[in-house]
Amino acid sequence: MRKLGRPLRWGLIGGGATSRIGPTHRYAARLDGKYALVAGALDVDAPRGRAFARDLFIQPERAYDSYEDLIAAERGRADPVDVVSVVTPNDSHFPISKALIEAGFAVICEKPLANTIEHARTLVEQVERRRGLLAVNYGYSGYPMVRQARAMITAGAIGKVQLVQAEFALGSVGSMSEDGTANWRTKPDIAGPSAVLGMIGTHAAHLASYVSGLKLLEVSADTQTFVPGRQLEDNAQILCRYENGARGSMWISYVAAGAWHGLRLRIFGETGGIEWVQEQPNELLVHRLGKERQILTRNGIGTPSEVSSASRVAPAHPEGFIEAVGNVYSDFADAVAAKLTGTPATYPYPDAMDGLLGVNFIDAVLESSRANGRWISAEPSV
Amino acid sequence: MRKLGRPLRWGLIGGGATSRIGPTHRYAARLDGKYALVAGALDVDAPRGRAFARDLFIQPERAYDSYEDLIAAERGRADPVDVVSVVTPNDSHFPISKALIEAGFAVICEKPLANTIEHARTLVEQVERRRGLLAVNYGYSGYPMVRQARAMITAGAIGKVQLVQAEFALGSVGSMSEDGTANWRTKPDIAGPSAVLGMIGTHAAHLASYVSGLKLLEVSADTQTFVPGRQLEDNAQILCRYENGARGSMWISYVAAGAWHGLRLRIFGETGGIEWVQEQPNELLVHRLGKERQILTRNGIGTPSEVSSASRVAPAHPEGFIEAVGNVYSDFADAVAAKLTGTPATYPYPDAMDGLLGVNFIDAVLESSRANGRWISAEPSV
Amino acid sequence: MRKLGRPLRWGLIGGGATSRIGPTHRYAARLDGKYALVAGALDVDAPRGRAFARDLFIQPERAYDSYEDLIAAERGRADPVDVVSVVTPNDSHFPISKALIEAGFAVICEKPLANTIEHARTLVEQVERRRGLLAVNYGYSGYPMVRQARAMITAGAIGKVQLVQAEFALGSVGSMSEDGTANWRTKPDIAGPSAVLGMIGTHAAHLASYVSGLKLLEVSADTQTFVPGRQLEDNAQILCRYENGARGSMWISYVAAGAWHGLRLRIFGETGGIEWVQEQPNELLVHRLGKERQILTRNGIGTPSEVSSASRVAPAHPEGFIEAVGNVYSDFADAVAAKLTGTPATYPYPDAMDGLLGVNFIDAVLESSRANGRWISAEPSV
Amino acid sequence: MRKLGRPLRWGLIGGGATSRIGPTHRYAARLDGKYALVAGALDVDAPRGRAFARDLFIQPERAYDSYEDLIAAERGRADPVDVVSVVTPNDSHFPISKALIEAGFAVICEKPLANTIEHARTLVEQVERRRGLLAVNYGYSGYPMVRQARAMITAGAIGKVQLVQAEFALGSVGSMSEDGTANWRTKPDIAGPSAVLGMIGTHAAHLASYVSGLKLLEVSADTQTFVPGRQLEDNAQILCRYENGARGSMWISYVAAGAWHGLRLRIFGETGGIEWVQEQPNELLVHRLGKERQILTRNGIGTPSEVSSASRVAPAHPEGFIEAVGNVYSDFADAVAAKLTGTPATYPYPDAMDGLLGVNFIDAVLESSRANGRWISAEPSV
Repeated sequence: MRKLGRPLRWGLIGGGATSRIGPTHRYAARLDGKYALVAGALDVDAPRGRAFARDLFIQPERAYDSYEDLIAAERGRADPVDVVSVVTPNDSHFPISKALIEAGFAVICEKPLANTIEHARTLVEQVERRRGLLAVNYGYSGYPMVRQARAMITAGAIGKVQLVQAEFALGSVGSMSEDGTANWRTKPDIAGPSAVLGMIGTHAAHLASYVSGLKLLEVSADTQTFVPGRQLEDNAQILCRYENGARGSMWISYVAAGAWHGLRLRIFGETGGIEWVQEQPNELLVHRLGKERQILTRNGIGTPSEVSSASRVAPAHPEGFIEAVGNVYSDFADAVAAKLTGTPATYPYPDAMDGLLGVNFIDAVLESSRANGRWISAEPSV
Repeated sequence: MRKLGRPLRWGLIGGGATSRIGPTHRYAARLDGKYALVAGALDVDAPRGRAFARDLFIQPERAYDSYEDLIAAERGRADPVDVVSVVTPNDSHFPISKALIEAGFAVICEKPLANTIEHARTLVEQVERRRGLLAVNYGYSGYPMVRQARAMITAGAIGKVQLVQAEFALGSVGSMSEDGTANWRTKPDIAGPSAVLGMIGTHAAHLASYVSGLKLLEVSADTQTFVPGRQLEDNAQILCRYENGARGSMWISYVAAGAWHGLRLRIFGETGGIEWVQEQPNELLVHRLGKERQILTRNGIGTPSEVSSASRVAPAHPEGFIEAVGNVYSDFADAVAAKLTGTPATYPYPDAMDGLLGVNFIDAVLESSRANGRWISAEPSV
Repeated sequence: MRKLGRPLRWGLIGGGATSRIGPTHRYAARLDGKYALVAGALDVDAPRGRAFARDLFIQPERAYDSYEDLIAAERGRADPVDVVSVVTPNDSHFPISKALIEAGFAVICEKPLANTIEHARTLVEQVERRRGLLAVNYGYSGYPMVRQARAMITAGAIGKVQLVQAEFALGSVGSMSEDGTANWRTKPDIAGPSAVLGMIGTHAAHLASYVSGLKLLEVSADTQTFVPGRQLEDNAQILCRYENGARGSMWISYVAAGAWHGLRLRIFGETGGIEWVQEQPNELLVHRLGKERQILTRNGIGTPSEVSSASRVAPAHPEGFIEAVGNVYSDFADAVAAKLTGTPATYPYPDAMDGLLGVNFIDAVLESSRANGRWISAEPSV
Repeated sequence: MRKLGRPLRWGLIGGGATSRIGPTHRYAARLDGKYALVAGALDVDAPRGRAFARDLFIQPERAYDSYEDLIAAERGRADPVDVVSVVTPNDSHFPISKALIEAGFAVICEKPLANTIEHARTLVEQVERRRGLLAVNYGYSGYPMVRQARAMITAGAIGKVQLVQAEFALGSVGSMSEDGTANWRTKPDIAGPSAVLGMIGTHAAHLASYVSGLKLLEVSADTQTFVPGRQLEDNAQILCRYENGARGSMWISYVAAGAWHGLRLRIFGETGGIEWVQEQPNELLVHRLGKERQILTRNGIGTPSEVSSASRVAPAHPEGFIEAVGNVYSDFADAVAAKLTGTPATYPYPDAMDGLLGVNFIDAVLESSRANGRWISAEPSV
């Protein structure tokens, strides 16, 4: 941001006082001082949104009642927002992101990018056509040890990748009930065609390909709905075929009763393997054929520089989820600043194509399960 | 053994000086003093077998050159062996076990029970017809915490079971190469139709049903051979459907490069879940919906008596694999002694039917994989 | 901050481009949006400090060459800084903090608060006399599970406390050598009378009393210097006597070769115990006499509200060191804002008295070691 | 045992039906087939002892009513016992061991070897004078990873040893109460001058020296009695000075409420360190200055042969406490057989001198605590 000489001006759509994920976006954006929150349409309940904007020290004139208002007003300002985050339920990701890109704003969108492949593909094309910038918040990919695993595998540390095992299986009180607080995450009109696959499965699928460096080619799946009265799937067992003959599986669940989290990635190649578990994110277990296991520490000895730059504090002082999402925000800020100052470069944030791949993954899994496990392509058609 | 007033007279077929699993059988049999090794046909190389018998303090006259010799000679003795363990490569499990049962001996057979469903079914029928006793060495089922998990689930501790996730995935130098010491485990003429499924997959499948209390109904599988020149599969990804609507998956592998072991079982029900990992076998992690996790300790507070009887030392003094197999041996000894003293009862060792289920499992997984993942019944046909 | 209607204006002394701990203060201050960095005297190398101030978007006129300049200029402004953090080597903590308090600013000071008991006591008295606000950055006390352990113990969850075992033992390349980058941490003219005790021992001592709720009464110690050429101690073994008959020990080390961190706290009472390890800070292991162990999760079921307010994200999404220090900053911001708006209240940040206790602890340990382990009082004299 | 051509004839004193530690001795002795239990004086309640002997298949004529009877009768037999284990309360260790050695039997004695230094020294001298064989059951030293740690440190894997941290701190229902089942372990007339130091402290002290290779020179201690009505100490905090300038501490406790076990050893040298925890005995964590940590697996890659011979099953199949004690039994059997066949050699079992060192350790800790922490020599006087 040095060349730009100021933080980015940042707007927020959604993420109001009752939002679950909104705070994470704000923590992540604040962490490195690269964003200044100056505008927002924070809530579908407009007065509540304006009150919350005041708590966030947003000037009242930039506390908008809708995303349309935000776009219209900010376009007319001399100091418009540079970036807008979309932190709303799934069904609005597409129209809001589309309007923002159209209006020339950089966008950070929650996952899934859209509720249909067509919408996701439209966003990919639009971003390309408008030379826009869009990040999808696959925040787990910001963890330093995730990036280190990717760097190690790219460098051949485990040989040719053969096996990719990913899991995201939890079962908190909230995810195991349709009662209580209305939960849009399992309602098809808002959540889209999928519940657990969209909310957490896309994270696992993104990580699996991001770290292994391999495209997911095909899936064979069995999805279920265990919670009575639920309209969408809450568990999915998936077999996977990747590029270069690699195979694997995924287990995605909202009904692993009592499990708090459960994001785990294991990748094995011809000469070794890595294990990463989100609940202990600062460590990476490395298996090595014919040698003893190693436990790598975040920012430890020999960390590649592109990975150590994703660390903020000394080794063994734990970093966490906010820092991981902060890395996505930080990389995207750098990309936006680079564009604003005419010095574009490549930054490792998940982009619109990653978003499309996630929507494709959801679609393929659901289709395979409907076809009783037939292998279905998970690649975007051209 | 109190009523019998002596240890069982025990014979061993296979398990010679170069056997990998032979020592475990001997440690397990010695542990509780219920077996006295008095006879053996220990090696296909007869002189080597006799030399080894001497090291084991077997009388020379009872060190036989073949299992046929052992059967013939022991039948003629006043003090014949009561039990014989079959610790040979897969292809001989069936003929040896058959001959032993026919001759009236109790049998402990290594897994898989046989190389074909027909053979396995024949043994089941023969055991029933002859009122014989046969145990299959699913030794992991002897771990106290495995039995405790089973007891808890039976008692409703996690509610109705919905998810069963089992893994047995390793990748040692030996399992990842066809070179070096000739390894019959991957040769179809000896190992049978399967490598990794038979050698370790059957353990995972047995544990999954044993602990969950649920029959495996159907599988959809993708098996692979990664090691060049290998004739049988060395990795299997399997989706599972169990009784009562429960679902799950299994990952069975010889090519998780650098992983030492990798037997793990996780079962979730409507209100909680259990996790057990063989590398830390004295603990059981219990998830509880709406409550904090617990770590149960072997033989700890509130252990059910049928489980605590499977423990030998005080809580937190670790027990291991020998003790687990020792529990299978101990239970089977009790069953044999009970029969000999005319007081038969039920003991929790894996029996011929469990052996048949394992062979069925192998067959169904291989058939599903050949059919590109079609769901195949894993239940024995009547 | 709602009543104040703006973030606090924040100044920074030290924490320049080469500072190790400076970034943590900035991350912590930014996290909740309660501080706006507007002024600084960032470096003893004034031009380097001004350049770095520009990178931090501090206005050039408020990038000062010395702390004296900062105080003088800010006192004259209509919008002076509200709070100043002192992030400099040990020997300057006292004069800078003294001058800031004298000038009426709230102060966040790195530990140890001072290099002598007299200086520390002076600051305590001055804060009291001036009704000032001063926090010492015992940042580990901000971890939610540390606070939960304290809350549980206060509520009687483990009965009367009997044993307090604390450790902070690391041995990184930096801490195990006098070569390479000049390291003021082991030089008596800057670091003061102690190296490892001051830098990390004070953290352990603070946590031990903070969580147990018990004053440290006496110590019996053996300190050593293992690294050749080092002038101050780099290892300390300490026996402790606490209030109410509780006992314990501390192990504080810079020479646990290859250990990355090593802050661990275990407290046992009459009916149970807690274990907390900084490298897995989101969990608390709870021992319970006659019951099974529990693993508590940050922000999990039944977290007391004064503890859950120290959490920022959902359970099992890890939080880390930045968030812990962020809690000290957040609590202190609330205290400062409360004072500014005339509504003072109590907030759980470590204060000047906690700083004095740390300096006392250092002094007592060193004196005991010089006296070959004689028990020495660790309580401040009145 | 090959040269001897038979198992050793083994006798047992104590270890009756209600003994806690008796079963472990029998499991350990049986494991390798090197011992045949043929005689016993199992119980102070003679009829109960004879009944139990029958359960163990001991011939009635060799089920003795007292150790004196056993010695007298076995000395007169053509096939007397070769080895006798002493598994009785502390106060009888000395007279029984003395009588056995005097009668020419090899002895395995529970720890502590004796209740006074004089008695222990007498046994050392007597063993030497009679060229007898005596092992003390410091069974934890039989764990393969303990032996591997020792072998690594001897070979310089962590450089010159500087720090030795040992703990054995538990707090089960039994250890935290004087009520319920009469517990001789805390009664001075039977247990001797110490409770927790003798019962578990001697284990920690033995391991610390065994693995580090360093003699304990001096201790400074603070012992306490927390349980009301208890006559002996139940907690000890100890500072240690070893040979070559190494330092350390020990924490020995019966009142770590709810902790199941708690034997942990950490040793750091100039270039690295090792950590071993009995509850996960098949792993060894290795810290390496400037490198990443390793987790060594029992019997894994590169295990020294003198260590791998202490393993019985394949890597990652857990072994436990019975196998550890089994290694002490196995080594001692080899020593006895070697003597019987006239080919004596050295075997790594803890001997009478190790027993004396343990009694010395107890004495020094108690004396230091009585002297309010004065440093006391822990070395045997000549």
